[in-house]
Amino acid sequence: MRMVDIIAKKRDGYALTKEEIEFFVNGYTNGEIPDYQVSSLMMAVFFNDMNEEERAALTMAMVNSGDTIDLSQIEGTKVDKHSTGGVGDTTTLVLAPLVAALDVPVAKMSGRGLGHTGGTIDKLEAVEGFHVEITEDEFIDIVNRDKVAVIGQSGNLTPADKLLYALRDVTATVNSIPLIASSIMSKKIAAGADAIVLDVKVGDGAFMKTEEDAAELAHAMVSIGNNVGRRTMAIISSMEEPLGLAIGNALEVEEAVETLRGEGPEDLTELSLELGSQMVVLGGKAETLEEAREKLQNALNDGSALEKFKVFLRNQGGDDSIADDLSKLPQAEFTFEVKAEEAGYVQQIGSEAMGVASSMLGAGRQTKDDVIDLAVGIKLNKKVGSKVEKGDVLATIYSNREDVEEVAQKIKDNYQIGSEKKTVKLIKQIITE
Amino acid sequence: MRMVDIIAKKRDGYALTKEEIEFFVNGYTNGEIPDYQVSSLMMAVFFNDMNEEERAALTMAMVNSGDTIDLSQIEGTKVDKHSTGGVGDTTTLVLAPLVAALDVPVAKMSGRGLGHTGGTIDKLEAVEGFHVEITEDEFIDIVNRDKVAVIGQSGNLTPADKLLYALRDVTATVNSIPLIASSIMSKKIAAGADAIVLDVKVGDGAFMKTEEDAAELAHAMVSIGNNVGRRTMAIISSMEEPLGLAIGNALEVEEAVETLRGEGPEDLTELSLELGSQMVVLGGKAETLEEAREKLQNALNDGSALEKFKVFLRNQGGDDSIADDLSKLPQAEFTFEVKAEEAGYVQQIGSEAMGVASSMLGAGRQTKDDVIDLAVGIKLNKKVGSKVEKGDVLATIYSNREDVEEVAQKIKDNYQIGSEKKTVKLIKQIITE
Repeated sequence: MRMVDIIAKKRDGYALTKEEIEFFVNGYTNGEIPDYQVSSLMMAVFFNDMNEEERAALTMAMVNSGDTIDLSQIEGTKVDKHSTGGVGDTTTLVLAPLVAALDVPVAKMSGRGLGHTGGTIDKLEAVEGFHVEITEDEFIDIVNRDKVAVIGQSGNLTPADKLLYALRDVTATVNSIPLIASSIMSKKIAAGADAIVLDVKVGDGAFMKTEEDAAELAHAMVSIGNNVGRRTMAIISSMEEPLGLAIGNALEVEEAVETLRGEGPEDLTELSLELGSQMVVLGGKAETLEEAREKLQNALNDGSALEKFKVFLRNQGGDDSIADDLSKLPQAEFTFEVKAEEAGYVQQIGSEAMGVASSMLGAGRQTKDDVIDLAVGIKLNKKVGSKVEKGDVLATIYSNREDVEEVAQKIKDNYQIGSEKKTVKLIKQIITE
Repeated sequence: MRMVDIIAKKRDGYALTKEEIEFFVNGYTNGEIPDYQVSSLMMAVFFNDMNEEERAALTMAMVNSGDTIDLSQIEGTKVDKHSTGGVGDTTTLVLAPLVAALDVPVAKMSGRGLGHTGGTIDKLEAVEGFHVEITEDEFIDIVNRDKVAVIGQSGNLTPADKLLYALRDVTATVNSIPLIASSIMSKKIAAGADAIVLDVKVGDGAFMKTEEDAAELAHAMVSIGNNVGRRTMAIISSMEEPLGLAIGNALEVEEAVETLRGEGPEDLTELSLELGSQMVVLGGKAETLEEAREKLQNALNDGSALEKFKVFLRNQGGDDSIADDLSKLPQAEFTFEVKAEEAGYVQQIGSEAMGVASSMLGAGRQTKDDVIDLAVGIKLNKKVGSKVEKGDVLATIYSNREDVEEVAQKIKDNYQIGSEKKTVKLIKQIITE
């Protein structure tokens, strides 16, 4: 088998066999096939796509290129959730205890944030004492006992995906549905998921800018999952504005607690119930999405979800009293209000810009080695559709420095205010095949 | 300027600017832009093509990536001929003295052969004493005095093209019209041509398998030439069978002499007159193709073309008496006749296979360092359309070893004989814009 023939075959519009896909993934991973042949193939894939079988084969070849996590000692169906990346996306913090409260095991491997989106581990570390450095045995024991735990990424998972992603990034081959879908799915499968719920974000702050593109990606991932024996569902949700009100690590933990108390922002609550329902159904703890939603709503109402969150924090060294006294979370020294300069309705809130603004305050990393400030961030006071009078507070900046003019300006610039009342449809589509 | 943005622009179907093209060609040549970005761009070009301006800019960027030959001290319009590569293509040996006899300066830089097509220098070295190791000053003096000389390739011509070609070869991006056309044209322009006549071969033994593809390539090259101030014309000629009867170095010199005597094979004579007419018109020595052809025919008839060949050989140390006594050329020790096993008409002669067969006898190189046998080769006795009886000689093998069974079989296998009388149309199209 020669790599140049594989490139030519894809270039000419033919489907590659499983063997050909394994040949190039393995050859690239072990250094036998050079970058320049792989980048040329990636561009051919960009133009000629891959069919369902090719996508499944590529995903599994990447899974098998490195270590995989064995969660077989955990009882029940391990359902993982993945978001394609949004701003102020606190759903994981809400969902993990919420579905665990219904006995769906949540054995989550998570990472730190980079750029304008936050990482789940960073957020959880805003709780004093909380840590993800636990052994795999501890991790499994905790999940079997209490149904929820988060562990830091370990092992050499999907090295082929890491190599391919780095190459695609510099060769203009990132925006290819089969390549994005297989990259995401390979990581979830290597991390041991039996079933996968996907939250595909769409809009300004998301990777997918149009609903059509988001639906294509969602279908691609659901199809891969189902083709390789992992039940998979997806929802397409809006990133036309940040999710919830909080952007920043401690601020998002606070918002998660409020949501688990049943007092969270409407959109975050709704998305958590929607994603949670899917997880509960895939986890076999409800027959229908309706039944699942009712159970989840009960867990919010009767305090069992919040109680599960406290257990979760305690199990990993965290101070669970923050759930009763949010002032124990890291607090920023200063707050500044950003006020509207004109009256009207909020038309749009630039999600990516809000993420960047929060990052500028110190809440996010530009490089892997940056130390982040857990206390700082932004809390939105007005969302899309809100009526605004001149002088109304649009958002509050939480900062540990006084010089926030640039950040305030960025926030102001990205609040579009107009005369028409607009509404955002949060859940665009639910995709099951 | 970032290479990844240039790749994305081409990927998305936009035309690159002259500056962007120069940026990547120069960056690649000096090692600043890595292979993997260039191969990705080449694949994007394969899919999205390049417009006329881009092709001209790419050609000139490759010309300017290295040395160029300055032929300005040679009087008159320097017309170069280029063939896209055929088997038994003796036209250069005929054309050089033929058009020089009409005072069109032929200042040719030439190379050695590799694979199944022969190189002009190899063929000329079948003449005892002939050498191409002359200085650039001698070269210019000879052309000014006698209108014809051949010099070996020297200097660092079009290094960008060499790098790109090597990369394309292993990344399945060879078959792209803008890339092939700019590669060929850059080499001709760097070698100092004022005007260019192109012989685009089509058929089994050629790079272009269909007339449509050949026409597209011809138009592309003619357009590049005219866009960068080099008058360019092309003909599309058949490679459905080898040109002429001889394949092999000394055998082709013999055939060239016969053709210059006016006694050559019909197809080789016709193609030489056709290409020669174009060269004479571009060289300003005739107004019309008809006038040019008449003058060329006269040069064959009155012996002035053959006389020019002798001067040409003499000027570069060659024994010109071979033109009067062909037995002074290297002679093979053995000859073997390949006979027909069935009666009928010759339908097709696999050109590439004949080139390979000749190579197997020692007439061609597989690697740059191979020493070739100038005496050996194949002479066809039957061409497409010839009537054949069982036992008729199809071709004669000239060899310095007795074990030629494999070669004989290859020749036999590639002579298709059938009941229908077929004819080959030698000149398919003439393309001037």
